[in-house]
Amino acid sequence: MSSEQTSGVVPERALGIAVLGLGNVGSEVVRLLSAHADDFQARVGARLELRGIAVRNVNANRGVPVELLTDDAAALVARDDVDIVVEVVGGIEPVRTLILNALSSGKSVVTANKALLADYTGELAAVADAADLDLYFEAAVAGAIPVVRPLMQSLAGDRVDRVVGIVNGTTNFILSAMGDTGADYGETLAEASRLGYAEADPTADVEGYDAAAKAAILASIAFHTRVTASDVFREGITKITAEDLASAADLDCTIKLLAICERVTDDSGAERVSARVYPALVPLEHPLAAVNGAFNAVVVEAEAAGRLMFYGQGAGGSPTASAVLGDLVSAARNKVHGGKGPDESIYAKLPIMSIGETPTRYYLRMEVADRTGVLAAVAQEFANHGVSISTVRQTGLENAATLVVVTHRAPDDALSKTVAALQSRDFVHAVLSVIRLEGTSE
Amino acid sequence: MSSEQTSGVVPERALGIAVLGLGNVGSEVVRLLSAHADDFQARVGARLELRGIAVRNVNANRGVPVELLTDDAAALVARDDVDIVVEVVGGIEPVRTLILNALSSGKSVVTANKALLADYTGELAAVADAADLDLYFEAAVAGAIPVVRPLMQSLAGDRVDRVVGIVNGTTNFILSAMGDTGADYGETLAEASRLGYAEADPTADVEGYDAAAKAAILASIAFHTRVTASDVFREGITKITAEDLASAADLDCTIKLLAICERVTDDSGAERVSARVYPALVPLEHPLAAVNGAFNAVVVEAEAAGRLMFYGQGAGGSPTASAVLGDLVSAARNKVHGGKGPDESIYAKLPIMSIGETPTRYYLRMEVADRTGVLAAVAQEFANHGVSISTVRQTGLENAATLVVVTHRAPDDALSKTVAALQSRDFVHAVLSVIRLEGTSE
Repeated sequence: MSSEQTSGVVPERALGIAVLGLGNVGSEVVRLLSAHADDFQARVGARLELRGIAVRNVNANRGVPVELLTDDAAALVARDDVDIVVEVVGGIEPVRTLILNALSSGKSVVTANKALLADYTGELAAVADAADLDLYFEAAVAGAIPVVRPLMQSLAGDRVDRVVGIVNGTTNFILSAMGDTGADYGETLAEASRLGYAEADPTADVEGYDAAAKAAILASIAFHTRVTASDVFREGITKITAEDLASAADLDCTIKLLAICERVTDDSGAERVSARVYPALVPLEHPLAAVNGAFNAVVVEAEAAGRLMFYGQGAGGSPTASAVLGDLVSAARNKVHGGKGPDESIYAKLPIMSIGETPTRYYLRMEVADRTGVLAAVAQEFANHGVSISTVRQTGLENAATLVVVTHRAPDDALSKTVAALQSRDFVHAVLSVIRLEGTSE
Repeated sequence: MSSEQTSGVVPERALGIAVLGLGNVGSEVVRLLSAHADDFQARVGARLELRGIAVRNVNANRGVPVELLTDDAAALVARDDVDIVVEVVGGIEPVRTLILNALSSGKSVVTANKALLADYTGELAAVADAADLDLYFEAAVAGAIPVVRPLMQSLAGDRVDRVVGIVNGTTNFILSAMGDTGADYGETLAEASRLGYAEADPTADVEGYDAAAKAAILASIAFHTRVTASDVFREGITKITAEDLASAADLDCTIKLLAICERVTDDSGAERVSARVYPALVPLEHPLAAVNGAFNAVVVEAEAAGRLMFYGQGAGGSPTASAVLGDLVSAARNKVHGGKGPDESIYAKLPIMSIGETPTRYYLRMEVADRTGVLAAVAQEFANHGVSISTVRQTGLENAATLVVVTHRAPDDALSKTVAALQSRDFVHAVLSVIRLEGTSE
């Protein structure tokens, strides 16, 4: 097809592709590479030829020609006729070593591996950039939704102030369902597992590790600063209750697990990066509040662009394969035509702001004694820590009252110290819930 | 700043930038280039130096150093120390010639000019691609929202089936306001002009020419086929009434001016491209229904990615400058590091489907005689043209009835012939409104 565009005979060029991993994503990558081979050739200017697929067990019927399968990933990566390595295995080793070996031997790399990138982008990018090879990873964040390329390229002339995303489909499915049905967390997690939205061991999702890895990647790109997973403050959704969702609804809010990357000015006037993951109350009028089920969305706020939102399917074999294949076409075009994607950009080197220093807002729900002076005493504890209260709602019970307090913005440390102080007072029977509030203008 | 990343002394490199035009967008481009000069240098690996700004009147106080201003755009473009030309003037000539001259003399080009691209991308891209130079135009569609780059690069490994966008802020502002206030079109247009959302001559916006140019650009990229403005069927919003919006609300819909680019399979089983712009009823549950005011959004449906949405500010000096500067950084990186953006991709060469053949759905509102047998006679006209009816609502008046009919999908030609036939029947007093319906699954 591409030969139509040139006159005369052109030498047939081909690029060799190695795929590591044949799970949901790998299978779709392999299927689409074959189904749309002519399109890939026309778009790249060279045929993409699959040299092999590395799997653990070559004997199983995997729905692909058996001669393509190998259990020797290292040998596949080392082949002279492989130009680009696609990694969709996940985890750190042996994948980190395989990717380093690929880059060291002149292969460009496309990966969907958020855990690896959250900690090792620096090491991998150093090798890729020195060798003028591509290291693309659009699929590592928010599946099919283009986020990495827009941040690295489309917004490269702008100044990003904030990236806030729903980047984990499992937790968003659970929180959406809890809001819809009024069911509690455990019951909803079990339902999510039955429907295939949660893994057998859901820890990485529900405890926020997956979202934190993505936050590290997004913050690194957005702020031209190397941010790793350990720089990201993280809380999961396991303590969220049906009462919290009902209470959020009373406040015209919903609850979402957010990955938040912010450029924050500290007391000295210097800029720092805050990267954090936690469940938060989000006002219903915020665009992320309407993102339900397993969908993902990322809101980017930049100086000139204003607020942008990117929305779509954040996981699953086909959507993730779409992102992988987009990167593969870019890497292949560069192999044919020269050039490479942007180098790792970490020139800004902004310091990380700890969660304690980061300005946040709290929503607190507590059971207090129902007697004169309690509200004043509660308010005094907030004042003692320099925290300003935005709204208070009190509901009488028999011998007690439920108090819902929403604060203005204050350093997270002052807020958590206020909560600790309240818990030590005799008129506070129990602090039932503490959740941060995001997406408000003040 | 970038020198931190290398050891020893590196030669100071600089790239010369020429800006054509100093309106809202040009002023912001110039301001941000200066305000964030260090960031640009670090991101590109070379200093971006503004060589000159072409304007009509160099004597006016334009808020920029007067020595940068020139009224000789051709001479500015021809300067040996200009590496990249940024065009934010608009219109066809003299801009087309200036861009061709820039490309012919080795300069990469960044433009926001949708009218030019809708008709001349082929000519301009041929010169750029042959010379290995960049021709970037993210800002031509949907302002700050990354759409062109995601379609050309992020989705380059996928198969796009449909692109549907709200890509004109003026008309979206007017339709949103009509829905909110119940005011009619003329009154709302006047209000939009007062608020600066509509130009003195609003024809390009309200008659759909602006959206049609953007549809041509989007369809070309999405379907790897050259689509020009004349290939796009176009209807504006000037006939939309307050009654139409009220009637849409009764059907749980709103009305949006949509740019629709579809891959359609014709009767022979061959694929064709339909590109069209018209006001359409959109169900409230469709993501585009919630896009109000001057905002833009583009929904992309692709085989593997599923449905994606991109949302943000589609016009205005700052948002458009953000897109221009993102392209400028890409073009500058390529000047420093080698490589170029993707060539024009038109290998698929899909034929254009005329509006008459394109499957659409119609909403019809008409006044009919209120007598026995009229509904049957109306239904018979639809059946005569092979059009299946989805819903009918009848409201009695004094001596007449209002009939609202929504059809199933049928060739647009069959639908418009049905309308013409109805208009010729004596029991149809008046066809009050004909609007297409989009965004439904059937």
